[in-house]
Amino acid sequence: MKKSIIDELVSIFGQENVLTEREDMIAYSYDAAPVEIEPEAVVFPTTTEQVSKLMKMAYREEIPVTPRGQGSGLSGGSIPLKKGIVLSMDKMKKMIEFDPNNRLITVEAGFTTSDIDPIVSEANLFYPPDPGSVAFSTIGGNVAENAGGLRGLKYGVTKNYVKMLKVVLPQGDIVTVGSKCVKHVAGFNSELIFVGSEGLLGIMTEVTLALLPIPQHRESALAIFNSLDSAAQAVSDIIAAGVTPSTMEFMDNATINAVQNFKDCGLPRDAEAVLLIETDGEMNSAKWEMSVIEEQVKKNDIREFQRAQNTAERDALFAGRRVALNALASVKPNLILEDATVKRSVLPDMVRGITAIAKKHNVQVGIFGHAGDGNLHPTFLIDQSDKEEMARCHKAVDELFQLAIDLDGTISGEHGIGLEKKPYLKNQIGDAGIKMLQDMKRMFDPKNLLNPGKMFDMPGEAA
Amino acid sequence: MKKSIIDELVSIFGQENVLTEREDMIAYSYDAAPVEIEPEAVVFPTTTEQVSKLMKMAYREEIPVTPRGQGSGLSGGSIPLKKGIVLSMDKMKKMIEFDPNNRLITVEAGFTTSDIDPIVSEANLFYPPDPGSVAFSTIGGNVAENAGGLRGLKYGVTKNYVKMLKVVLPQGDIVTVGSKCVKHVAGFNSELIFVGSEGLLGIMTEVTLALLPIPQHRESALAIFNSLDSAAQAVSDIIAAGVTPSTMEFMDNATINAVQNFKDCGLPRDAEAVLLIETDGEMNSAKWEMSVIEEQVKKNDIREFQRAQNTAERDALFAGRRVALNALASVKPNLILEDATVKRSVLPDMVRGITAIAKKHNVQVGIFGHAGDGNLHPTFLIDQSDKEEMARCHKAVDELFQLAIDLDGTISGEHGIGLEKKPYLKNQIGDAGIKMLQDMKRMFDPKNLLNPGKMFDMPGEAA
Repeated sequence: MKKSIIDELVSIFGQENVLTEREDMIAYSYDAAPVEIEPEAVVFPTTTEQVSKLMKMAYREEIPVTPRGQGSGLSGGSIPLKKGIVLSMDKMKKMIEFDPNNRLITVEAGFTTSDIDPIVSEANLFYPPDPGSVAFSTIGGNVAENAGGLRGLKYGVTKNYVKMLKVVLPQGDIVTVGSKCVKHVAGFNSELIFVGSEGLLGIMTEVTLALLPIPQHRESALAIFNSLDSAAQAVSDIIAAGVTPSTMEFMDNATINAVQNFKDCGLPRDAEAVLLIETDGEMNSAKWEMSVIEEQVKKNDIREFQRAQNTAERDALFAGRRVALNALASVKPNLILEDATVKRSVLPDMVRGITAIAKKHNVQVGIFGHAGDGNLHPTFLIDQSDKEEMARCHKAVDELFQLAIDLDGTISGEHGIGLEKKPYLKNQIGDAGIKMLQDMKRMFDPKNLLNPGKMFDMPGEAA
Repeated sequence: MKKSIIDELVSIFGQENVLTEREDMIAYSYDAAPVEIEPEAVVFPTTTEQVSKLMKMAYREEIPVTPRGQGSGLSGGSIPLKKGIVLSMDKMKKMIEFDPNNRLITVEAGFTTSDIDPIVSEANLFYPPDPGSVAFSTIGGNVAENAGGLRGLKYGVTKNYVKMLKVVLPQGDIVTVGSKCVKHVAGFNSELIFVGSEGLLGIMTEVTLALLPIPQHRESALAIFNSLDSAAQAVSDIIAAGVTPSTMEFMDNATINAVQNFKDCGLPRDAEAVLLIETDGEMNSAKWEMSVIEEQVKKNDIREFQRAQNTAERDALFAGRRVALNALASVKPNLILEDATVKRSVLPDMVRGITAIAKKHNVQVGIFGHAGDGNLHPTFLIDQSDKEEMARCHKAVDELFQLAIDLDGTISGEHGIGLEKKPYLKNQIGDAGIKMLQDMKRMFDPKNLLNPGKMFDMPGEAA
């Protein structure tokens, strides 16, 4: 990177907020996806105006800029594919305003998601989206990826809570989109264009989020099934009975066995599936919902239905699910965690299809995930140094995505497209869909400098 | 309109689906806003492909096209401002698929919104958004305007229920955006770009909506307040207690008196405000919520708190609210119904401000609306033939919008910008905000042919 550029970065951000040393570049070359590309500089804005100045300079000098939260993304969204500058939001993590009357909180984009609840719980409020990374990921990253989590069926995902955004557009304009009002229809749904845009359309610097009252009570249960079909039928029966559980987590036989190998959580190794189910709300309501669930579940081929009577029992029921990913990770040196998602009604087809694909390509897979919203996490267990196995695994992943598309589902429920799923997006949304995304990208970012090369290629761009 | 164009329209739609007679044009020259402009032709597509062909022809011949549902919009969204062709969705009103397992329904855009519930209630489901026009407005129109209603605080608005759309883009491409999955992050939030786009970015032909289980039970109450502040404080207290009513409707003293003049609904003429409150859900939960509400409301300067014990009592409590708009309409020959919206916490400032503005300009106003979401309907009572009064009313409306903006609110909570609020949008979202909307419009519709002249002017376009 030219010295004059670095001097200008220093003049914008201050010496202490510009990194260019090789060892620092390595730290910003990767996220939770298996790709590494070093940037040429890393900057740490402390104000929205600095971000605006950076983008104006980037536009003038044609330097790629890749925004970054805490690098916990699973689709490679924060990898600086075209090198250039990484814009780390690590020094913009202030709480700006907590407004309990209107059930809103406004934070800077670098704010850690799990730091919201300790602030707002004093007013009996909480922030519902709970991605797996909630303890370290940032709100800006969650918004950019439209992060999900365990409570999606009842509570929705990040996009359902974003009220207002301050955004720096790729050419440096600062806009405030959305509204703090419950209802607003002035202009297009601009704030939602940026949610899930993976850093391609603008850089969020401030985010206003809606909050909900903390549910008064929670009921928890574990259901163990003799067959996959009975687990799936139980899910359908629960939904048909008009109940919406706050959590309905699924683990398949392979995951159950990985868990039991890792730590005895009391799960029967020959069970085909388990569901971990929670209801929440006013106490009588949560209890009533769980009683309906028990009744529906027991109509099916079930081995056991355990209801937690207290927090210790709940923790015991959830122990297996909590260690599931670590248990799977311990089986082989590496894993590929996917998030292909289908409609709830075709969940058994999806599980059976994934199992068949893994068998066909001779790779190990464990399936767990969010049964209520059809968002599975098929996890392929691999050894990256085994090139032959990796080739088989890639074929399996290809087929997995096609299966999701064939079942009217999506290649990504909550991780995003990024680099990892870019080759598959066209199969899902078609040429006209890709063209619409390209047109939008070109409109916001005619020089393709903000997080270039993610989600889709621009016409003429190397794939 | 040239004969060759009309011939082409007939070849696309069939003779029976093309109108060009003057008397027919009059019927399509207006909606629920006070503007009339006749189109040159009206067409009735029966398939998405016909809509695509129309837009390709419109692009080739540079003819404006204005989509239209049932013309019940309050902001002039379906007025053919630049004449040309009105595209009526009146013959695309089929139900395509009801999928109770996944709690989804897919309908053509011309489907009447209130026709959903009779279909889905058989599976104990309902469609929550309930705009005032629900009995005659179409789903396509609701999506285009992001329609709201009485249940916004607890259940959200149209955008919270739109899962997937089939859309004809202005140049004729057909795209399917969104997903039937609960979670999906493949591509930008494209389906939400079209929600609330007021027919400027594309023509929705098919809509997939999410549904919810019908609440088991409902509790209803009427609270009568001696002062505006105590009503507002009661709203804050209810929210602070962690309760989210499904309905919390407000009427001010002027509306109360208009109601009592119209029909004796038992409301005290000297009360400053009433709140109509409902809770719903599991029976014990709804009852508990209402008991919390009663406790919170009674902490304030209240005259009376009446709880309905049955449906007849509920109907009696709601009688005043039900006739409010008709009652106000009977006071003067015409009315202007606005929907400026603020944060719940500044509701009393807004009500007092509107009352002061009306007094200053010597126009009558009644205020009712949705207190839980700060979405008020200040209704100016006027005589359109009285030019002097109209001039004063327009000044009052100008000040009303500025007050909403000054209070960090929005000029439209649920009616849209259309023609009616176009002059005010820039004051709310600024030059950079307008430019972003213009850029998006230009990208989708470079010749500005789809519903031109609504929401904002394009650069160089006559204001």
